[in-house]
Amino acid sequence: MDDDVLTIGGHGFTSRLFTGTGKFADDARIPRMLASSGSQMITVALRRIDAEAGPGNVLDHIPPGVTLLPNTSGARTAEEAVRIARIARAAGCGDFIKIEVITDTKYLMPDNWETLKATGILAEEGFVVLPYVLPDLTLAKRLEDAGAAAVMPLGAPIGSNRGLETASLIALLIENCRVPVVVDAGIGRPSHAAAAMEMGADAVLVNTAIATAEDPVAMGRAFALAVTAGRMAFLARMAEESREARASSPLTGFLGAED
Amino acid sequence: MDDDVLTIGGHGFTSRLFTGTGKFADDARIPRMLASSGSQMITVALRRIDAEAGPGNVLDHIPPGVTLLPNTSGARTAEEAVRIARIARAAGCGDFIKIEVITDTKYLMPDNWETLKATGILAEEGFVVLPYVLPDLTLAKRLEDAGAAAVMPLGAPIGSNRGLETASLIALLIENCRVPVVVDAGIGRPSHAAAAMEMGADAVLVNTAIATAEDPVAMGRAFALAVTAGRMAFLARMAEESREARASSPLTGFLGAED
Amino acid sequence: MDDDVLTIGGHGFTSRLFTGTGKFADDARIPRMLASSGSQMITVALRRIDAEAGPGNVLDHIPPGVTLLPNTSGARTAEEAVRIARIARAAGCGDFIKIEVITDTKYLMPDNWETLKATGILAEEGFVVLPYVLPDLTLAKRLEDAGAAAVMPLGAPIGSNRGLETASLIALLIENCRVPVVVDAGIGRPSHAAAAMEMGADAVLVNTAIATAEDPVAMGRAFALAVTAGRMAFLARMAEESREARASSPLTGFLGAED
Amino acid sequence: MDDDVLTIGGHGFTSRLFTGTGKFADDARIPRMLASSGSQMITVALRRIDAEAGPGNVLDHIPPGVTLLPNTSGARTAEEAVRIARIARAAGCGDFIKIEVITDTKYLMPDNWETLKATGILAEEGFVVLPYVLPDLTLAKRLEDAGAAAVMPLGAPIGSNRGLETASLIALLIENCRVPVVVDAGIGRPSHAAAAMEMGADAVLVNTAIATAEDPVAMGRAFALAVTAGRMAFLARMAEESREARASSPLTGFLGAED
Repeated sequence: MDDDVLTIGGHGFTSRLFTGTGKFADDARIPRMLASSGSQMITVALRRIDAEAGPGNVLDHIPPGVTLLPNTSGARTAEEAVRIARIARAAGCGDFIKIEVITDTKYLMPDNWETLKATGILAEEGFVVLPYVLPDLTLAKRLEDAGAAAVMPLGAPIGSNRGLETASLIALLIENCRVPVVVDAGIGRPSHAAAAMEMGADAVLVNTAIATAEDPVAMGRAFALAVTAGRMAFLARMAEESREARASSPLTGFLGAED
Repeated sequence: MDDDVLTIGGHGFTSRLFTGTGKFADDARIPRMLASSGSQMITVALRRIDAEAGPGNVLDHIPPGVTLLPNTSGARTAEEAVRIARIARAAGCGDFIKIEVITDTKYLMPDNWETLKATGILAEEGFVVLPYVLPDLTLAKRLEDAGAAAVMPLGAPIGSNRGLETASLIALLIENCRVPVVVDAGIGRPSHAAAAMEMGADAVLVNTAIATAEDPVAMGRAFALAVTAGRMAFLARMAEESREARASSPLTGFLGAED
Repeated sequence: MDDDVLTIGGHGFTSRLFTGTGKFADDARIPRMLASSGSQMITVALRRIDAEAGPGNVLDHIPPGVTLLPNTSGARTAEEAVRIARIARAAGCGDFIKIEVITDTKYLMPDNWETLKATGILAEEGFVVLPYVLPDLTLAKRLEDAGAAAVMPLGAPIGSNRGLETASLIALLIENCRVPVVVDAGIGRPSHAAAAMEMGADAVLVNTAIATAEDPVAMGRAFALAVTAGRMAFLARMAEESREARASSPLTGFLGAED
Repeated sequence: MDDDVLTIGGHGFTSRLFTGTGKFADDARIPRMLASSGSQMITVALRRIDAEAGPGNVLDHIPPGVTLLPNTSGARTAEEAVRIARIARAAGCGDFIKIEVITDTKYLMPDNWETLKATGILAEEGFVVLPYVLPDLTLAKRLEDAGAAAVMPLGAPIGSNRGLETASLIALLIENCRVPVVVDAGIGRPSHAAAAMEMGADAVLVNTAIATAEDPVAMGRAFALAVTAGRMAFLARMAEESREARASSPLTGFLGAED
């Protein structure tokens, strides 16, 4: 597994669990969560980054070596997303950017079209762009053409913990995309994360389910193990499902000889 | 997690992944699978144990320290199961016994009633009895009363790899049984194993999905990680599912101040 | 469809929707529900039948031509079920009897073994016995041998409206039983009833979902249509599922000729 | 139910089952399918319509009183869809048009963005536009703004018969759209159609599952009943699901008095 490296934007990641900084009761838990989970990429809303910030700055809790993935949370248009991305880079957050453009305030569903526009603009400017989208195969191919470094389809609404409700649509992306597919949003349990990896996803991003657990450090570890489990199973080729039973042990005539 | 010990029949297990010896293309892989998975309990059909056996004896591949769980595969009645159990003990296989009584040769569904009868008899004789059953709450309570050391409800037909088709019935056992609940049969993917543990199962038994994988050693490891992940998530209290979305990051008015 | 008759205990039924008398806010709605649904068999708990009863007697609301299916609700043992059945017959309720033996007061799961015992006794006495059970293939074959006129596996706990949680187990009964399989308990929506019939069930029994609807008369009609729909689809051989898409309309080159 | 009319483009429909002309082994069966199902709207690919046609013209099989819904099958861009729509209207097919723009030839997933463009253009020209789309809430709101008369989200890939794989996304459209939501593609069984209507869909379009059944006339009737069943259940307010069981019949102490 050590040489099973996921490359995005020229960076290699040996952990396929991406995490987030939102919703922690106490940001001081973030470093321990990162340590327990081994996560090497973490997303943060730009609003939470304050260049002049004192102890409240969430960036203080992210150790070196972990790639920062600023997101454009709060953007309602491509233009706003582009502006946020530029601010993030100017603030020293690096070249990675997760594009979130959301107009629906109840279900927080992404605006695929504005996201595509922002992706094209930012990729041109040299950003490593990871767009958060509804899993739409036709759009995903356009995101690739526009220079996306990965696509991040949602499994279920943000924060819902409902798992892979869109599994059949995500499967089309996995089968057809050249860039990595990172399942984002909705993953509420380690089994959901494992299932995404078994399907062939390249990584998952888990925020709410870890940050709001009673013990985020333990939960981060649990998700990390599940992601590795799912990845290993994918690489080791799982056996197929079968309509009928197949005996594990010899079934008939055990006692026949002596009867 | 190190002090999270599962006790069955007076033995403590730190691994909650039970494995099996059936269906390996090459039994010589069993020790490496046991090492990679950390499994501390493995089931074996008595027919495969031959006291006078030479190199073909499957027991030669099971290292000391791993608890042997002989099973009564091939038994069609309680009486046959009892007889097989006694033979296993006489052959030095120890006190543990997994009762399988199966009359249906197509779907290999267990005969709950004959299994209950055998459980009572063998528990009286001092066996540590783990009955393999269809998840029936009323029966499970009777198994407890009859002295079962654990109950092993099936998730789906043996060897089908279809996962937790009986999840809603297994949940009743988990909620109501005093003895450990070990989900057996049907678990085909690490995500299935994780899901069983997240529900609160005490352990899972996985045979076909590991033994018939292209790489059983890697798959054993994958299942072990998934079981630990699910167990950790159960202990760390997962967050609840939600009908609506809940923002991970601040959503509104990001650029409001400067507009 | 008119000659698609279900025969149980020598009676022919052209409706495959069985209903119940429990939980109606007003029993006076029962006749209208029976008329709207066309149901020809209705279950009633013996306790609700009072030979000396005045206007409160639920039987007064069941028109002639509808077969009465007294049930042994309240029985905790085979013996109690047998006693209730005999009382029902003595009270003029006819030969049909639905056996319910339940000891679990929270989930109301049936006691399969006591139910089997009562089935044998009552079938011997000439009753038309419909046992309510957890769908256990081995048990179902024994119920047939004991003289059951049909088997009534549960889809989900009584009154839960959760649908066919045990579908994979019910499928085994449908495939293997000689007597009719009537899915009982848990059916909460017309789509659940249709799905049961599409699987090949011979009938369904729906009580809670009709009786507790805002408009039980309309809901009775809705379930009746769904049952017929599912049955027709089963008889007309549904098309298979497909992993890939298959065009309904010609797809390529529409405008090719003029381009 | 008779006054439960669905209005699209100023036309009232009492049947909420839309059908299609594709894939019939023999087009002569279409009129009988329409009669048995009561369907009042049927889709047809323009390519199959030939003004000069003789007996092979599919339109000859569509009786008066059934609204024709020409579709733009074969279009790969908004421009092509627009051109096909205009040809259809010029050929006397009326104002209704179902927009299909598909570039993915394997899974036949719609191109949401090109579909939106075509919708705007055709709505301006006075067409009654029904766009076939991936269920994307943000897009659906834009389709409304662009003048769509309804939205037609897919349940699963065309012709797959896999049902409501996108149910959680369709639910958002049903909850938030002002225009009717017609579930199209993937509906393979009457139970799927009933489930869509129970969710609150305004109608469903079923083609493959009817046309390729052994008996399309019977299957058309089965789907019609299922659609009505689901609609009635939706209007009659179904009871909620429950985690626990709820007794239908009095459970305790039946025999207490005489014990």
